[in-house]
Amino acid sequence: MGPRGTFTEEALDLWIKKLGVSPEEFKKVPYYSIADMMNVVGKSLDAAVVPIENSLEGSVNITVDSFIRGVDAMIAGEVILPIAQHLLVKKSIPLDEIKEVLSHPQALFQCREFIKRKLPLARLKEVSSTAEAAKFVSESEGNIAAIGSKSLSKIYGLTIAAERIQDSDNNMTRFYVLSTEDEKATGRDKTTMIFSTENKPGSLFRALKVFAERGLNLTKIESRPSRRILGEYVFLVEIEGHRLQEPLKSALIELEHSTSLLKILGSYPIFEF
Amino acid sequence: MGPRGTFTEEALDLWIKKLGVSPEEFKKVPYYSIADMMNVVGKSLDAAVVPIENSLEGSVNITVDSFIRGVDAMIAGEVILPIAQHLLVKKSIPLDEIKEVLSHPQALFQCREFIKRKLPLARLKEVSSTAEAAKFVSESEGNIAAIGSKSLSKIYGLTIAAERIQDSDNNMTRFYVLSTEDEKATGRDKTTMIFSTENKPGSLFRALKVFAERGLNLTKIESRPSRRILGEYVFLVEIEGHRLQEPLKSALIELEHSTSLLKILGSYPIFEF
Repeated sequence: MGPRGTFTEEALDLWIKKLGVSPEEFKKVPYYSIADMMNVVGKSLDAAVVPIENSLEGSVNITVDSFIRGVDAMIAGEVILPIAQHLLVKKSIPLDEIKEVLSHPQALFQCREFIKRKLPLARLKEVSSTAEAAKFVSESEGNIAAIGSKSLSKIYGLTIAAERIQDSDNNMTRFYVLSTEDEKATGRDKTTMIFSTENKPGSLFRALKVFAERGLNLTKIESRPSRRILGEYVFLVEIEGHRLQEPLKSALIELEHSTSLLKILGSYPIFEF
Repeated sequence: MGPRGTFTEEALDLWIKKLGVSPEEFKKVPYYSIADMMNVVGKSLDAAVVPIENSLEGSVNITVDSFIRGVDAMIAGEVILPIAQHLLVKKSIPLDEIKEVLSHPQALFQCREFIKRKLPLARLKEVSSTAEAAKFVSESEGNIAAIGSKSLSKIYGLTIAAERIQDSDNNMTRFYVLSTEDEKATGRDKTTMIFSTENKPGSLFRALKVFAERGLNLTKIESRPSRRILGEYVFLVEIEGHRLQEPLKSALIELEHSTSLLKILGSYPIFEF
């Protein structure tokens, strides 16, 4: 998972709860780099939880790019978490006395209407995680605040100065659960893959054709630069279905002919709220 | 353009040179926010240059999202600029005495191999632009350095301590030239559009079909969250051809039937080096 008290830890807790097993059966290991964490699944870690996309911000590029550069881990599950941000302070003070607000850049961005309206004079400071922001506030004197989750207020003994300060209630983050293997078919599955196509008319169209003509729903497509030539892309695509079940199984065999790189990242059950 | 001395200014200069007109005919106006700048084209600005994608980093989300939220400007041209980063200092000092390196997060990322190898002990500090980093270094005492373009060294009177320190020579940034109207057909044109599709099997496939069956090359596709529902996307797509010329003209009429939002952002000549 990420640092203690971040939304990635909440996603991990939700996943453990869904599995119906005791939290004591797991040892949680905080990581500060998504790329580093993804590389040690199957080595020093049995599983990892990484963010893949947010409903307001879009895809998490570092996660997509790590898959493109190559990791051995497979996707064994997904977790979708509603995101609520709170304003955290050491001691209660009036909002207009807050001089500085710290958080991860995405969290600051998600709360920009609240900041503009209620904290127009506060300086904004970007730090590497919401946990780092909370830790810094807990160790500092002065009128500063952090933006982060409710769990952070508990971990660092902070007071919630304002609740649910994010601009939109459609704020959800989706996470992948990575492991050494993906999951067996349940009948309601999704499959994630990466591929690249030639820079020729209709090449992406021909790749998507194998899914469309079988009535398979494409639930996500993300393009990332190949890092070789401007205008050459690698795609991360998600399709409903399991890679070992028809009709997706034969679609993937056909897809190999129209792509120059194809890697199946895993099949896993669709998340249910 | 962006702040003075950034790559956006270099792109603007290159565009003016390509137009073959005198630079004195233009008044350059620096802007610190891409979104703000895009909103005033046709009002306080006649034209604007904005970055759209980098060959290593991918799309510039704020540019794509500004088009999705709606701007009146149209795309009238594109400029592709090779990116070379340099290490800039106030006075020549040995590299191993540099204690802090400042730059835009993307520039720091683009030079991470150099930093790891030659400046392993330097602290990294993210600032809002390469220009801000150069300005800060020019006004500070102490062994600090900025990463940025050659033009910044001239503007802020800095010395180049190391040349071309970016990890990859495939580092190019593509810019849009925005204006109140797009361009007439030249026979070698490209058209940019945004559209969204229903979350149904084959809907993106049906949208791309109108181009593929006419042999029109898709040169870019970028998905961004709709900001309404997780898993619902808006696409920015680029196709070779001019919107007022066949076969693209009839493809776009057909596209209206398979998309729920379609906005043509402009047709413009393909950039030639």
